[in-house]
Amino acid sequence: MPVTVIENIGLLATPVGRTARSSKEQRDIQLRQNAWLAFENGVITAIGEGRTPAADAHIDACGKLVTPGLVDPHTHLVFGGWRQHELAMKLKGVTYLEILAAGGGILSTVNKTRAASMEELADKAEKELEKMLRLGVTTCECKSGYGLATEEEMKMLHAVQLLRERQPVELVSTFMAAHALPVEYSADREGYIRLIIDEMLPRVAEEHLAEFCDVFCETGVFTPDECRRILLAAQQLGLAAKCHSDEIDPIGGTEMAGSIGAVSCEHLIRCQQSGIEAMKSGGTVACLLPATSFYLGATFAPARQMIDAGVPVAFGSDFNPGSCPCRNLPLAMNIGCYRYRMTPEECLTAVTLNAAAAIHRADRLGTLEVGKQADILIWDAPDLEYVFYRFGDSLADTVIKNGAVV
Amino acid sequence: MPVTVIENIGLLATPVGRTARSSKEQRDIQLRQNAWLAFENGVITAIGEGRTPAADAHIDACGKLVTPGLVDPHTHLVFGGWRQHELAMKLKGVTYLEILAAGGGILSTVNKTRAASMEELADKAEKELEKMLRLGVTTCECKSGYGLATEEEMKMLHAVQLLRERQPVELVSTFMAAHALPVEYSADREGYIRLIIDEMLPRVAEEHLAEFCDVFCETGVFTPDECRRILLAAQQLGLAAKCHSDEIDPIGGTEMAGSIGAVSCEHLIRCQQSGIEAMKSGGTVACLLPATSFYLGATFAPARQMIDAGVPVAFGSDFNPGSCPCRNLPLAMNIGCYRYRMTPEECLTAVTLNAAAAIHRADRLGTLEVGKQADILIWDAPDLEYVFYRFGDSLADTVIKNGAVV
Repeated sequence: MPVTVIENIGLLATPVGRTARSSKEQRDIQLRQNAWLAFENGVITAIGEGRTPAADAHIDACGKLVTPGLVDPHTHLVFGGWRQHELAMKLKGVTYLEILAAGGGILSTVNKTRAASMEELADKAEKELEKMLRLGVTTCECKSGYGLATEEEMKMLHAVQLLRERQPVELVSTFMAAHALPVEYSADREGYIRLIIDEMLPRVAEEHLAEFCDVFCETGVFTPDECRRILLAAQQLGLAAKCHSDEIDPIGGTEMAGSIGAVSCEHLIRCQQSGIEAMKSGGTVACLLPATSFYLGATFAPARQMIDAGVPVAFGSDFNPGSCPCRNLPLAMNIGCYRYRMTPEECLTAVTLNAAAAIHRADRLGTLEVGKQADILIWDAPDLEYVFYRFGDSLADTVIKNGAVV
Repeated sequence: MPVTVIENIGLLATPVGRTARSSKEQRDIQLRQNAWLAFENGVITAIGEGRTPAADAHIDACGKLVTPGLVDPHTHLVFGGWRQHELAMKLKGVTYLEILAAGGGILSTVNKTRAASMEELADKAEKELEKMLRLGVTTCECKSGYGLATEEEMKMLHAVQLLRERQPVELVSTFMAAHALPVEYSADREGYIRLIIDEMLPRVAEEHLAEFCDVFCETGVFTPDECRRILLAAQQLGLAAKCHSDEIDPIGGTEMAGSIGAVSCEHLIRCQQSGIEAMKSGGTVACLLPATSFYLGATFAPARQMIDAGVPVAFGSDFNPGSCPCRNLPLAMNIGCYRYRMTPEECLTAVTLNAAAAIHRADRLGTLEVGKQADILIWDAPDLEYVFYRFGDSLADTVIKNGAVV
């Protein structure tokens, strides 16, 4: 196979390791000036400083910053329709429950997702993925959860499979039928939970449609006990557990998720000390969604307490048509930097190695080290601080996925 | 001259009028569905709905949203260097005064601006302008104020003149030597004020280098009395007055500016009721800078009280290397929408007609009406709410400046 070398790297910045980093490790990234990086067959084979070695092909980084490709560990990428009209209603003071009663909210997206074909969902998501790639995102997690019926959930997961064949961003599927209670089951919570456990999850496992199972543990959605039952059933079928918890009310979801060894907890805006301790003992990654806090005008998760307690912090975009219609992970990263007061180094780890760990990819993705996949981002920036300073800009210059410029 | 028609406009949204809009007027924009717009020789000649008239050239809006081109009424576009290292210091808790003492802050930009040639300053600014244009900005105000010495201030204003010849964004110059007290005059405030009034302002007026004079009225910078002296001198020479006021402390700048009939006050984060009343009686536009509040983690200006009191509100990006290194006016617009709780309609007026009024261009720019200049933005959006909903995206599709697709 031909060897490609990226030469003239002004600054190569990367976390190191094959597992999530917490505390001081999250901040202590590796920095190399005047560096080069070689890869072959999609795998990094050598990294050095100074004189560039011989190679079959060269990419000139022009003295710019080079980091791992960005990993977005939390999106709801596949959905029908948009919900822009809710913004104007919210600005006028209409409450979430009033919007829901008027046919809006998540159930409006469920209706539009059900009304769309698998191909239509894939086409719509593909346009967004193309723009995410241009922002430097090389790997993206996608949740189901707007079907809320067996075939509809399968349709969403099949759309992700179709997208894998069509474009270069690596997609990671999460099954999330426990995203809301569908109208058909509004008088039969137990019936819907049994449908998920007895019918949907076995289908997902048998057809290898998802690696993860996520649940929305929140007041008015699913209780910690309901979520535990679903996640334990998923784990028995080989799916790893994730949990949306402490977004609005701290009702015990994070504590439950940590106790069953969930891979990640999501949102965590209202996370308590007991939740932080549960994530620490469960080996759980805290997946924070700063752009969602920003859009909702909500408070921000206690990121510093998590890092200090030894819980690894990752950032996701949370791209979805309701609470975060923004797929710009670099912007989310910058919002996280400013509002969590995390350093650029900590934030870089949050969107690379720790994000990869939140989707079981840290062995292969998330750092620039020999043996890792050549997912690489050249930034139109001289250093890491510049990337966090120039918010609202699109600084991705060259994106390399699995060894190919894309 | 050939007639061009933009056809197949899904929604044409524009404020109307030739002066700034306040109160209900700021919100009551004109909406036309299934519309077309004709222009000739850079001037809008007809607007209608339904069947498209004959024309020499056609632009297909593909059913998308069309608005006036965006006007950025407040930038510090021309400067030397960047200050990304201050972000990391700020995140670590280093104070502004400590950064200044370490050679950072505005005086660091002054040193780098002085060290750059006029051509270097223009080249650097041109790269940013090109990206601003791609975001839909067709007119941009630029302040001097990093030279702080006669020839250095003239150099900044000459760089803007050079940029006018090089690229299509219309540039409006503001002289702002009263941006900070230069080190050379740290023991002689009165000497610097006299230099501005006796030497710089006459040069600016004589060489027609700026239409406006701005001052930074703030604790530790210039007092309201000093600012009044400078602005009155500017007005006598034919420059209209602007004033940075109430950004950090409400020391009376807005009250002073309104009393002398300033065109606009800028920032206004801490603006009091007396300031709002002064702007109302002075016919002054409130130029708010939402991205700066966001970046600094500061509070947000009382926009609703201003609108309710009959003061027209405009938004600017405040692009500068210190307090807002973001030139993305659409992002600033969206931050303004969310944090000021202004409607999409009010915000559109803030970045078009009212922004044009803040730079004395409302007679010619800022709306889509017969007789106005053909500065037009086609958005990759189906309606106005979508633009405000999909924050962090770049939705400008086609930008038309003075009748030319640019």
